Amino acid sequence: MVDQKMYELGTRKSTIREAFEYGRQLAAREGEDKVFDFSLGNPNVPTPDFIKEAAVDILQTMEPSAVHGYTVAPGAPVARKAIADSLNKRFGTKFTEKNLFMTAGAAAACTICFKALYEEGDEYLTFAPFFPEYRCFVESVGGKLVVVPAKTEDFQIDFEAMEKCLSPHTKAVIVNSPNNPSGAVYSEETIKRLAEVLRTKEKEYGHPIFIIADEPYREIAFDGFTVPYIPNYYDNTLVCYSYSKSFSLPGERIGYIVVPDSVADFQAVYGAVAGAARILTHVNAPSLWQLVVGRCAGRSSDISIYKENGRLLYEGLIDAGFTCVKPQGAFYLFPKALEDDDYAFCERAKKYGLLLVPGKDFGCPGYFRAAYCIKTDTIRRSLPLFKKLAAEYGV
Amino acid sequence: MVDQKMYELGTRKSTIREAFEYGRQLAAREGEDKVFDFSLGNPNVPTPDFIKEAAVDILQTMEPSAVHGYTVAPGAPVARKAIADSLNKRFGTKFTEKNLFMTAGAAAACTICFKALYEEGDEYLTFAPFFPEYRCFVESVGGKLVVVPAKTEDFQIDFEAMEKCLSPHTKAVIVNSPNNPSGAVYSEETIKRLAEVLRTKEKEYGHPIFIIADEPYREIAFDGFTVPYIPNYYDNTLVCYSYSKSFSLPGERIGYIVVPDSVADFQAVYGAVAGAARILTHVNAPSLWQLVVGRCAGRSSDISIYKENGRLLYEGLIDAGFTCVKPQGAFYLFPKALEDDDYAFCERAKKYGLLLVPGKDFGCPGYFRAAYCIKTDTIRRSLPLFKKLAAEYGV
Repeated sequence: MVDQKMYELGTRKSTIREAFEYGRQLAAREGEDKVFDFSLGNPNVPTPDFIKEAAVDILQTMEPSAVHGYTVAPGAPVARKAIADSLNKRFGTKFTEKNLFMTAGAAAACTICFKALYEEGDEYLTFAPFFPEYRCFVESVGGKLVVVPAKTEDFQIDFEAMEKCLSPHTKAVIVNSPNNPSGAVYSEETIKRLAEVLRTKEKEYGHPIFIIADEPYREIAFDGFTVPYIPNYYDNTLVCYSYSKSFSLPGERIGYIVVPDSVADFQAVYGAVAGAARILTHVNAPSLWQLVVGRCAGRSSDISIYKENGRLLYEGLIDAGFTCVKPQGAFYLFPKALEDDDYAFCERAKKYGLLLVPGKDFGCPGYFRAAYCIKTDTIRRSLPLFKKLAAEYGV
Repeated sequence: MVDQKMYELGTRKSTIREAFEYGRQLAAREGEDKVFDFSLGNPNVPTPDFIKEAAVDILQTMEPSAVHGYTVAPGAPVARKAIADSLNKRFGTKFTEKNLFMTAGAAAACTICFKALYEEGDEYLTFAPFFPEYRCFVESVGGKLVVVPAKTEDFQIDFEAMEKCLSPHTKAVIVNSPNNPSGAVYSEETIKRLAEVLRTKEKEYGHPIFIIADEPYREIAFDGFTVPYIPNYYDNTLVCYSYSKSFSLPGERIGYIVVPDSVADFQAVYGAVAGAARILTHVNAPSLWQLVVGRCAGRSSDISIYKENGRLLYEGLIDAGFTCVKPQGAFYLFPKALEDDDYAFCERAKKYGLLLVPGKDFGCPGYFRAAYCIKTDTIRRSLPLFKKLAAEYGV
């Protein structure tokens, strides 16, 4: 009677959601202070005051129809222009409003790109560990997600493994840096090499291979780590951005796609993006938020809390005997589990109220994700428990 | 290199869009007062002050994370509960928050329903004249749109024609009342008879047939016309609603789906709705607007302007010799064109600066749509031009 796959997608709980719900039950039973919920990637830096001020000012001073009326499908020209100008200033690009398409966040942006580019038999590559919804979104447009195994020593790209995964069917490579869940930032060296490999393969296969740069965490990179702007390294790049993290506006669904002039056929790609947005009913992103992010383009939340949290958790875990790549960006650590079965490990952690997500969910078994976008004090109080957990394993 | 169909969908201009753009050029060339743009269905009643006040109050008094954080996928419980309560009060239903799924407007809501219900070979019926995007949305999920010919004497349902279109493949019937483009409101008699026919066919075919009630114009119905609440007449009804028109918030993308307990298998349908929303990247509708519409549930804009506009245009057209069904709701008139070729008729109207949309675009050739959500004075000034146009045809 209904689409069975939709039913399963709508009712099967993710491990993340299960951990979160277990935490709520535990809190109700034993008190909030007994729960250390590292499961959800919900930004905890407050929405900056300048966002509130911009929203209130727009509501109070502009004509309602100019705020709440339909915008053209790709979004309000004034917002797209402001964002293009801000990107140009930061990255030396030469975008104009016609390179921007406003979307309801990065998930919508990615799915629109997948749909726009898809032709029968196309494959989309991504690198483990990866955001699990990619599979769902790529398959929803008919594509196949091909996962390049993780390079666990530093969570950069394993190029040898990647070359084995590339084929004439490869339409695009999804790059998510700073990365969810590993917290790694791809270095300039990594991006340069990736660009070289893809350019070679484009020639070999005789067709473009796109990079879809999924960048909701772009502004969250710590000292010493810069996030290369991929369109400056590789022509066939589409950038998917969200203000969910940089402005702590995850509920408002606002972001954009950049289609640079440099892509193989700008008119075709931008046109297909517009068509995909149309049938996914994603034209005209929420209009108030278009104006707000346009007005605040180039600014960002204060990310010092994430930096402090990351350092604290990292040092605590190392001290407890875990192995883990140092935090570089986003708000996740991705340490090695203390037994091969990461599900069993996360189950055992629950005894201490430590809610973690198994690496297998991100295509990287044997590891776990700890989201540190939570109260610093919660992290501090969790450290002795991580020690106890490690002690169970004789670490 | 890209999905060719997406490219066409993204670049082919609709007749509506073309008329609108022609109007902008004409205005630039000959002045704004020479353009009578009846092409776009963009609400011109200002967003009510209570909406602005609610939005500003929420922004200024609530915790930012409670306003802008992720909501659960179906939407903020507080908003869903308020809307359910308001519907119950108006229609005597017994909905709770679990019957509501918040969406980014009615187009998203409909597409989510089409996707949720679709099984291989399914057909979706609609009645001419119809909102042309239905075809695009139904086909995007793999379905076939079957169009029941119009009953042009009153734009109610031609049941004889409908029965010929029903088949064991019929999954759902799309009902859009008050109707875009005809301006008709389906009477209680029509809805009762529709429900009877479908119940008979459900038994005959041995499976449910859904009504998908697309109701963005629900609140815009004029004196003497009430819009029956279809879940009270037919169990297998899903309601798709948008606040675009009732609160003049089209750019903000906020609406909902109602899945009543009475549908054949509530868990299956609601679950599939959630799954379809997930892969269409439509979980968590814009969160500020969820809170605003929750707080203002049951209120509506002042629609007296539409009523006055409709009366004025209708009387003017009748006076000029047109035949047209009296305005009942929404903000459209759908008169008979003065020649069989409605495209040629609309082309001729352009000479006078009258921008109209051919009925063929809505599956009903020989008619035209005039959207009267424009300034009353523009309508008044247009009437002598409609007379001149009619005179060309010797009317």
